[in-house]
Amino acid sequence: MKQRVFEANLALPDAGLIKLTWGNVSEIDREAGVIVIKPSGVPYAEMTAESMVATDLAGVPLDAKGLKPSSDLATHVVLYRHFEKVNAIVHTHSTNAVKWAQARRDIPAYGTTHADTFYGAVPCTRPLSQEEIVSAYEEETGNVIVATFQERHLDPLSCPAVIVSGHGPFTWGKSCQEAVQNSVVLDEVAGMALGTELLNADIASIDQYLLDKHYYRKHGKDAYYGQV
Amino acid sequence: MKQRVFEANLALPDAGLIKLTWGNVSEIDREAGVIVIKPSGVPYAEMTAESMVATDLAGVPLDAKGLKPSSDLATHVVLYRHFEKVNAIVHTHSTNAVKWAQARRDIPAYGTTHADTFYGAVPCTRPLSQEEIVSAYEEETGNVIVATFQERHLDPLSCPAVIVSGHGPFTWGKSCQEAVQNSVVLDEVAGMALGTELLNADIASIDQYLLDKHYYRKHGKDAYYGQV
Amino acid sequence: MKQRVFEANLALPDAGLIKLTWGNVSEIDREAGVIVIKPSGVPYAEMTAESMVATDLAGVPLDAKGLKPSSDLATHVVLYRHFEKVNAIVHTHSTNAVKWAQARRDIPAYGTTHADTFYGAVPCTRPLSQEEIVSAYEEETGNVIVATFQERHLDPLSCPAVIVSGHGPFTWGKSCQEAVQNSVVLDEVAGMALGTELLNADIASIDQYLLDKHYYRKHGKDAYYGQV
Amino acid sequence: MKQRVFEANLALPDAGLIKLTWGNVSEIDREAGVIVIKPSGVPYAEMTAESMVATDLAGVPLDAKGLKPSSDLATHVVLYRHFEKVNAIVHTHSTNAVKWAQARRDIPAYGTTHADTFYGAVPCTRPLSQEEIVSAYEEETGNVIVATFQERHLDPLSCPAVIVSGHGPFTWGKSCQEAVQNSVVLDEVAGMALGTELLNADIASIDQYLLDKHYYRKHGKDAYYGQV
Repeated sequence: MKQRVFEANLALPDAGLIKLTWGNVSEIDREAGVIVIKPSGVPYAEMTAESMVATDLAGVPLDAKGLKPSSDLATHVVLYRHFEKVNAIVHTHSTNAVKWAQARRDIPAYGTTHADTFYGAVPCTRPLSQEEIVSAYEEETGNVIVATFQERHLDPLSCPAVIVSGHGPFTWGKSCQEAVQNSVVLDEVAGMALGTELLNADIASIDQYLLDKHYYRKHGKDAYYGQV
Repeated sequence: MKQRVFEANLALPDAGLIKLTWGNVSEIDREAGVIVIKPSGVPYAEMTAESMVATDLAGVPLDAKGLKPSSDLATHVVLYRHFEKVNAIVHTHSTNAVKWAQARRDIPAYGTTHADTFYGAVPCTRPLSQEEIVSAYEEETGNVIVATFQERHLDPLSCPAVIVSGHGPFTWGKSCQEAVQNSVVLDEVAGMALGTELLNADIASIDQYLLDKHYYRKHGKDAYYGQV
Repeated sequence: MKQRVFEANLALPDAGLIKLTWGNVSEIDREAGVIVIKPSGVPYAEMTAESMVATDLAGVPLDAKGLKPSSDLATHVVLYRHFEKVNAIVHTHSTNAVKWAQARRDIPAYGTTHADTFYGAVPCTRPLSQEEIVSAYEEETGNVIVATFQERHLDPLSCPAVIVSGHGPFTWGKSCQEAVQNSVVLDEVAGMALGTELLNADIASIDQYLLDKHYYRKHGKDAYYGQV
Repeated sequence: MKQRVFEANLALPDAGLIKLTWGNVSEIDREAGVIVIKPSGVPYAEMTAESMVATDLAGVPLDAKGLKPSSDLATHVVLYRHFEKVNAIVHTHSTNAVKWAQARRDIPAYGTTHADTFYGAVPCTRPLSQEEIVSAYEEETGNVIVATFQERHLDPLSCPAVIVSGHGPFTWGKSCQEAVQNSVVLDEVAGMALGTELLNADIASIDQYLLDKHYYRKHGKDAYYGQV
């Protein structure tokens, strides 16, 4: 499990989604009651599988003398608690997704590249209040993500991404590999959507039936994309 | 033939036109009645020449126990049926071309880089209707491409590309290599055209005689570009 | 000399300025009466130093059985005839410079990165007329460049670049290396200038005294940049 | 020390921040009274640790027969004199930061990627006057940077970057590594901020309490990011 999380963390700079130490991947084993996450602020070149930090489901490190976990762990813990089918979470500051986060806008579903992975617009949270930021910033970041999904009646598995206002994206999935892949797709569609608006300021999201078609080509019981 | 199609498929991520498994190349042998296409959803790192799927001209796999063909095969089949001089087809979600597809706009011929390959604007199809999407999506995608060329009196060989509204580009050619090359050119001119509009919102397409000059420098009986 | 021209041609795709076979470098030896230029339409992977084509000063190949020279040779010949201190010429379709060519706009001197190499705006030619295009396209392309420099009283060595309307850039210099370097700088400042306008639609060119300072830091008898 | 400065200079083209010879890194040893800086105009491929130029605190080379120091040395000298806790300085013409410099605008703090490194907007200086440019250009560039920080009551360590109007960025830090890292962050947030404005022309900087939270997560006595 540490090996998987380590490799998933390395996949982020390889995909151009991470500069310096900006980002982290975690995985949860709900049966064993363990979360494994990247350590805080360790350069990618110095990380090993052993550097990964194991914690309990409340985010308390199992090895009190080991490396400190990512400072964003508390956000991951909240998401795992509420998104029960999610087994891995990725946080990045990938360039295109951050542009939307800073613009405080949802990323509309402008095409099938988007619809193949995200069933509808990728939501942007409201900004956190001063009280939330001062009291328990990382935990409240998780809470505002969960609240966004609840208020908009979104299913975390059919929209496996969010952008946090003024901050950046979180993505997730059933496995580390899927969560990383969703970060790749998110940044790509974020860049495409910006270009789309520059070319046509009046463009609308794709029709609901095209969204349905592409999403369900790849997901659910009637999926027919791939070899399964 | 499988080797050629395999290599052409690999050329797409090498040229930066493909992320993940988004895209496919096929080739047709009209004499032998065979189409060879990429399998559906197989990661590029795992593909071999043997993974390529051979089908008949209706798109039925010759080896019923083999890998499933690309889910876009039905689109390729329609295009091969109507574009009789086309021997290879490429589909990608390349970043710049998708921006125009999502903006639902033709790519105007703003310069000679465009005119060297595409004789006039690269057309964008109309959006598919709900009925078309629900009934036979991939086949109807082929049909709307063919209809676009018929209605606008376009020759598929002098404009070897189309962008499907809300989706992305298809390109083609007399060989796999030519079809892939046309995808490279299309994405490059799509990016240039966006920048051109940002610099000059009132810019017009190039003059017809400059378009003629550049296109026919490279194509037709009076071509004088290259070593032939 | 063929080796130098060959290496300079290879430097273009290495610097990301060329896709496919779009572009060419030539060098002139005025004493010997020889021009060496890239052959027409030969893939970079297949070129060798021996593939380079030697011609006389009128552009007639010395070896009648050898490869055909670049189709743009006639443009180079005109430039060498009128720009007497120029010893090497580069033509590319580099992405950012083409955006300005297609927008039919001069590239303003918005900063010192520009001023270090180009003493003032890089001019964009007028579009060629139908008669010019039909009669002797490549030669007339050279003529319109020369006319642009004459009408604006520009010195080809202090502004070693031009963009041809609807087409793309030509750069030059005292050596192949300098001409290639000027293509690198041109594309970089073309991209910077586009971003500058997006950030400030009312921005003006830099002050004449800052332009003077930076240009003459690197050029002329009072230059003090570098080790000479 | 020469080795450190050499490696930091090489890190700039590796990070994509430098083309040709545009940029330089210096380090100061205040105890020993020595500054080490890149030589002027030497191609990166030809540089060695021994090429680095050592000077006294006034910028006079210790080895009168050695290579000439970077022409920007006088700017570094002024900054070291006034920014007493700064031990290393980097100058680049990195693409995104130059766009803001040429647009003559501060880079607003639009998100946490920015706030993690820069406590507030990165300031853009006023343009230099003709007299300043003609008399002692590089020294006056240092002076206008210092004046910008004094007039705005900015702390050079909490905002370790500036953009010089019409020119480009300088960054600094307690070490070469930190100064280079700040150049990487600056160019990244400069690009993000441009995209943010394209997506939302009315966007404001992030709230002061989010800025405080992110900056002080990584800096000062209550920092809790990383392993220290």
